Amino acid sequence: MNDPSPVLGSTDIPPDIALAERLFDELRHRTSDIRGVTRMSYGPGEEIAHAIARREAEALGLGTEIDAACNLYLTLPGQTDAPRIVIGSHLDSVPKGGNFDGAAGVLMGLSVLSGLVAAGRVPPWPITVMAIRAEESAWFSASYIGSRAAFGRLAAQELDTVVRAGDGVTLRQAIALAGGHVDDVALGCGHWAPDDVAVFLEPHIEQGPVLASKDMPLGIVTNIRGSLRFRRAVCRGAYAHSGTTPREVRRDAVLAVSELVAELDQAWRRLQEQGKDLTVTVGEIATDPEEASFSKVAGLLRFSLDVRSNSLATLDEFAIELKSIAATIENDRNVSFDFGPRTSTTPARMHPAVIAGLRQSADEARQPVLDMPCGAGHDAATFAALDVPTGMLLLRNENGSHNPDEHMDINDFSAGAEVLMRFCLSPPDIPK
Amino acid sequence: MNDPSPVLGSTDIPPDIALAERLFDELRHRTSDIRGVTRMSYGPGEEIAHAIARREAEALGLGTEIDAACNLYLTLPGQTDAPRIVIGSHLDSVPKGGNFDGAAGVLMGLSVLSGLVAAGRVPPWPITVMAIRAEESAWFSASYIGSRAAFGRLAAQELDTVVRAGDGVTLRQAIALAGGHVDDVALGCGHWAPDDVAVFLEPHIEQGPVLASKDMPLGIVTNIRGSLRFRRAVCRGAYAHSGTTPREVRRDAVLAVSELVAELDQAWRRLQEQGKDLTVTVGEIATDPEEASFSKVAGLLRFSLDVRSNSLATLDEFAIELKSIAATIENDRNVSFDFGPRTSTTPARMHPAVIAGLRQSADEARQPVLDMPCGAGHDAATFAALDVPTGMLLLRNENGSHNPDEHMDINDFSAGAEVLMRFCLSPPDIPK
Repeated sequence: MNDPSPVLGSTDIPPDIALAERLFDELRHRTSDIRGVTRMSYGPGEEIAHAIARREAEALGLGTEIDAACNLYLTLPGQTDAPRIVIGSHLDSVPKGGNFDGAAGVLMGLSVLSGLVAAGRVPPWPITVMAIRAEESAWFSASYIGSRAAFGRLAAQELDTVVRAGDGVTLRQAIALAGGHVDDVALGCGHWAPDDVAVFLEPHIEQGPVLASKDMPLGIVTNIRGSLRFRRAVCRGAYAHSGTTPREVRRDAVLAVSELVAELDQAWRRLQEQGKDLTVTVGEIATDPEEASFSKVAGLLRFSLDVRSNSLATLDEFAIELKSIAATIENDRNVSFDFGPRTSTTPARMHPAVIAGLRQSADEARQPVLDMPCGAGHDAATFAALDVPTGMLLLRNENGSHNPDEHMDINDFSAGAEVLMRFCLSPPDIPK
Repeated sequence: MNDPSPVLGSTDIPPDIALAERLFDELRHRTSDIRGVTRMSYGPGEEIAHAIARREAEALGLGTEIDAACNLYLTLPGQTDAPRIVIGSHLDSVPKGGNFDGAAGVLMGLSVLSGLVAAGRVPPWPITVMAIRAEESAWFSASYIGSRAAFGRLAAQELDTVVRAGDGVTLRQAIALAGGHVDDVALGCGHWAPDDVAVFLEPHIEQGPVLASKDMPLGIVTNIRGSLRFRRAVCRGAYAHSGTTPREVRRDAVLAVSELVAELDQAWRRLQEQGKDLTVTVGEIATDPEEASFSKVAGLLRFSLDVRSNSLATLDEFAIELKSIAATIENDRNVSFDFGPRTSTTPARMHPAVIAGLRQSADEARQPVLDMPCGAGHDAATFAALDVPTGMLLLRNENGSHNPDEHMDINDFSAGAEVLMRFCLSPPDIPK
């Protein structure tokens, strides 16, 4: 099937899957940890990944730009100057995470551009592959750092108040050490305005089991869950001897938080039964290793709480429920809860025309796709919040993400790249 | 009121409270930590305390002996050779603990002996003050190490399997480093046989709030709670993304343990309402700092469980309840519990004749006393288990123990010492 037009509408240009495979191997090899890979935000692993992406773009003759926050932009010119299609994702990973989370989106973009370069094809619109910084908030306790900075939307104070887990480096120091221009970031100088981007597409491995359980290779995201987060909550009671302190006078922080967790789980069940979208997770919990003992009632317990929903109203409803449950336990158990700073993201809707365009490209490529919500936060939420028409393509992953066992089949990746290629060559009409 | 007999029955000899005050100060000064005091079992703080006790005993002209496990025996001869009254307690402390826990018993014994020496009084029976090693099982996860070794009842294998928290030193290494004769300990060579001890008395600060709440300075223990302990329990589920993993497929270790803790608390309440003696404490709990994240469902949670009761039957009943609750949660939540090694102590009854003798001495001294069970484990339980007639005297402490705020009023200590002095000068008739 030869395309009659060498410029427009052709859909038989293959993406360069071999390039992606080679770069996945190199990334894994050069950023491996004792288990999985570690690519710290603005740290050594992320630096390596950015250098690899830039090297490959230069070899392909793409335009390369780096913004004040060290995001990387790799551009193939189009038949018109602007606006552009942006295919992007992040290149950092959680500690001891998987190789595909984030990197798959950047490499899928590069495989599309490499395919176009090899075919000598000029796409209708410019296409920019964007390698975004610092998406994994396991490092810096702020969301979407790189993508917000690209639009000049990082608050100046975050540069000094947000510090990296483990080494305590401030965001300001980290960006400066990576060669960024922190003062420009602080002044809100972005790389572009929302109107410069016609479409933002983020391909990403799925981070849950839905596609695998339904035996579907690809998913098209309808919306991204927002979150209500307390990363450093504390319950304070009183230390006391485990054998001599009567039940009635105990102020047991472990018991109080256990009750809180069990009741939040019941609240989640009730809201879900009402048809509301929600997840509730206490992922970290710990008594004080300096003070706690198996023979003491615990006087202090630290814990995290991560609540997510497609609906801001549901998040607000849950926050009220949380407050009420905590107040009852404080009263019953003579303890106090301090939930600490609340870090949140708002739910984001993907653009209907982008969703429709991705579905049409998938249909043309004869790839089955599932419409689905996305429970994980992604930089796509930043673009959507700024009214950039945004879409996400998810790749099946049966082992979950943020762990070394994360799985991606290269055939699924190839199917996704083909969908993107078709989308880029025949972008849909998008009313903003 | 002069006593007509210079040898027998006199009760107006004052214990040497000034000596105790001086030694409490020296102990606090020389074993202080950033908070409270730290006297590690067979470690620097305990060594200092033993050296102080020995120095003072030598200055008083007492006989001093050290056994294979480094317990210290300070003896004032009596009018008969044997058996003897032993007043003893431990000189180690928990990390950042209080100054009086353990030490009060040894110093009260010394204040009695110093009072007798100053008065030139020879007591009816020999009196030995015993400074016992390694009672605080925060260090070595085995109970009553020193007192069991004194009777040759430490199992040889414990020397190699029991290691010290923090530095991982084995009990064998620790005893050897303190100058002990580990091979003798392993062979079961004790310092004495149960019949050598006519009475064992352990004065100790109360570790709960009962005396303070009843405004009583002294308590006489009726029995010591036994325990059912799992120091290193683990719940295993599966790590998963907090935002993308549906409720139905989660294997959440934090939620499973929270439910376990909340249900064990309910079981405790039910048993207590049935009049059964019980305490239930989960004092330590922690997700894996290497793997857990606020944005992951926790796949693993470590926790401790300390259950105590006066009744072995109640401990057994609770163990069955625990097993059943855990099995239900394993099934409901698709997790597994591994409770690890069970370290337990059996409940111990104080001897009725010793209790009566202490009460009579208190009556003579016009000191109000409360009969009470003791929730904490003490070396007295070792003596009682070997059928040595045993008693304990508790001193009011309004702030609980195993913490730097532990409190002891020197007037309460003085009242206790006076009771002991009277007991030693007119020991009761004790049918074995």
